[in-house]
Amino acid sequence: MIPADFVAHANRFADISRAIIHKEIYQPREVTIKSNFSPVTPVDQKVERALRTAVETTFPEHGIVGEEYDSCNADSEYVWVLDPIDGTMAFIAGLPTFSTLIALTWRGSPILGIMDSPVTRERWVGVDGTGTTLNGETIQSRACNTLGVAFAHTSSPLYFETDSDVAAYDRIRNAVQFLIFGGGCHAFGRVAHGYVDVCFETAHDIHDYLALVPIITNAGGVISDWQGRPLTLSSGTRFLACGDREVHRQAVEILCGN
Amino acid sequence: MIPADFVAHANRFADISRAIIHKEIYQPREVTIKSNFSPVTPVDQKVERALRTAVETTFPEHGIVGEEYDSCNADSEYVWVLDPIDGTMAFIAGLPTFSTLIALTWRGSPILGIMDSPVTRERWVGVDGTGTTLNGETIQSRACNTLGVAFAHTSSPLYFETDSDVAAYDRIRNAVQFLIFGGGCHAFGRVAHGYVDVCFETAHDIHDYLALVPIITNAGGVISDWQGRPLTLSSGTRFLACGDREVHRQAVEILCGN
Repeated sequence: MIPADFVAHANRFADISRAIIHKEIYQPREVTIKSNFSPVTPVDQKVERALRTAVETTFPEHGIVGEEYDSCNADSEYVWVLDPIDGTMAFIAGLPTFSTLIALTWRGSPILGIMDSPVTRERWVGVDGTGTTLNGETIQSRACNTLGVAFAHTSSPLYFETDSDVAAYDRIRNAVQFLIFGGGCHAFGRVAHGYVDVCFETAHDIHDYLALVPIITNAGGVISDWQGRPLTLSSGTRFLACGDREVHRQAVEILCGN
Repeated sequence: MIPADFVAHANRFADISRAIIHKEIYQPREVTIKSNFSPVTPVDQKVERALRTAVETTFPEHGIVGEEYDSCNADSEYVWVLDPIDGTMAFIAGLPTFSTLIALTWRGSPILGIMDSPVTRERWVGVDGTGTTLNGETIQSRACNTLGVAFAHTSSPLYFETDSDVAAYDRIRNAVQFLIFGGGCHAFGRVAHGYVDVCFETAHDIHDYLALVPIITNAGGVISDWQGRPLTLSSGTRFLACGDREVHRQAVEILCGN
C-alpha cells in the first residue's frame, strides 16, 4: 500500500505545475531546439525546476528523473519521473492536449501516476491498489474485444521512422476501425476513461509514459511495451495502452508482426 | 457593415450549442457511421437541430446549410452554414479540440464566423470590418515570412488519399519546420491567435471551413483554397490558412507543385 501522504504530496506537486502553466497559456512561446531536435520552452524548464524543488524538499532521500535536467539519485528505492509539459508541440501551438506527468516508481516500477491537464482542468490520478480517478471520480476503461471495432490513437505518423516502426504502424492502421492523431497523453487518459480503445507510440522516453501506467492499469486497462512486457525505469521507446485485455493481446500480436 | 444584432444572435446560437454539448462531455458516445463512412453521434444531430430552430425562428428569410441535414433556402442572400461538432472524431475520443462552427454568408461569401470550443470555454468571433476576438479580446495572427521556420498543422495524414494530395502533403511536410496533427479547427483558431503559422486540409466540406474565413482574415491572416482563391459556398474540399501573407504565397506554390 502506498502511504497516503505520498498521494497528497503528488497532488500538491501537480497543483504547483498547474499554477505555473496557467499563467503562461496565453503568453507568446519562446522555442529552443534541443540537441535531439525536439523543441523546449522556458515554461517546460520552469515547471520542472519547481517540481524538482518540491520533490527534493519533501522527499530528500528519493530520486528524480526529469525530461529537461540530469537525473538525481536515480538508484533510490523511490524515484519520481517528471515530464513538466508532455506535448510541448501542442503547448507551443496553443492546443489543449498537453499535460504535466508525474510518476512515482518503487524499485523501478511505477506505483502512482498523475496526469494534470491545465487547460481542461482535468487531473487523472492512478494509485496501485486504490484505483484511478479523474477529478476525484473513479473511472474505468471500456470493453472492446476485437481490434476491428477499436478506436485507436497515435500522436504523429512522423514518429514512425525506422522500417520496422513504419511496418508496425501500417499493420495496426489497417487493423483498427478508426485511427486519430495528436491527442498526446490526453488520449491515454481517455483509454482509462473508456472513450478510446488503443493508443500506441514509438520514439518516446520513460518520462512520457511511466505516469500513465498506474492510470491505465488501475482503471482496468493494460499498458506495456510493444512486446507486452511491463514498463519500468529501464523500458525503451515503444509503448501501447488498451482498455481491454483481449484487444491488448491482439494489438501486441499486430505490432510484433505475428 | 454587418448589423450588430446579427453578431449578437450568432453569439446566442453558440450559447445554445455550448449548453447542449456541456451536458454530454462525460456521457458515453453512441456512434453511427454515415453513408460517407464518417462517424456521427446523436449529439451532433441534436445540436444542429437546435441551431436550425434558432436560426429559422430568428431569421426566417435566411438560408441554412448544415452538416447533418438537408439545406434549406440555400439560394437566399444570407445563408447560415452550421457544423454542430467540427471534429466529431475528437469528440468521440474525449479529446478537447472539437468546436461548433457557425458561419454567416452574404451572396455566397462568409462575413461572420464563430468557433465555439465547449471544453476549453473559448469562443472565436470574426466579423468583417470589426476584427477577430477570442473570449472578447482582439487577437492577431503572427508574422512568419518563410515556410522553413513555419509551425504547421493538418488534422490527419489519412485524409490525403489521392496521388496528388499525397504528393502535396509530402512537399509541404518537407518544407515546414514543424508539422503536428489532430488539432482540427482549434489549430485554425491558433493561426488567428498567433501560435500556428500554417494549417492545411483536404477532404473537407464548406461547413468545416466557412466559419474560419472571417476569423482568420479579420485577425490579419489569409485563408483560401490551395490555389489561393477565396472560399465561398461553392468552394471544394481543400483549404489553407496562414498567419502571414508571404508564407501563404509560399504555401500555395508548394501545395500546387509550382
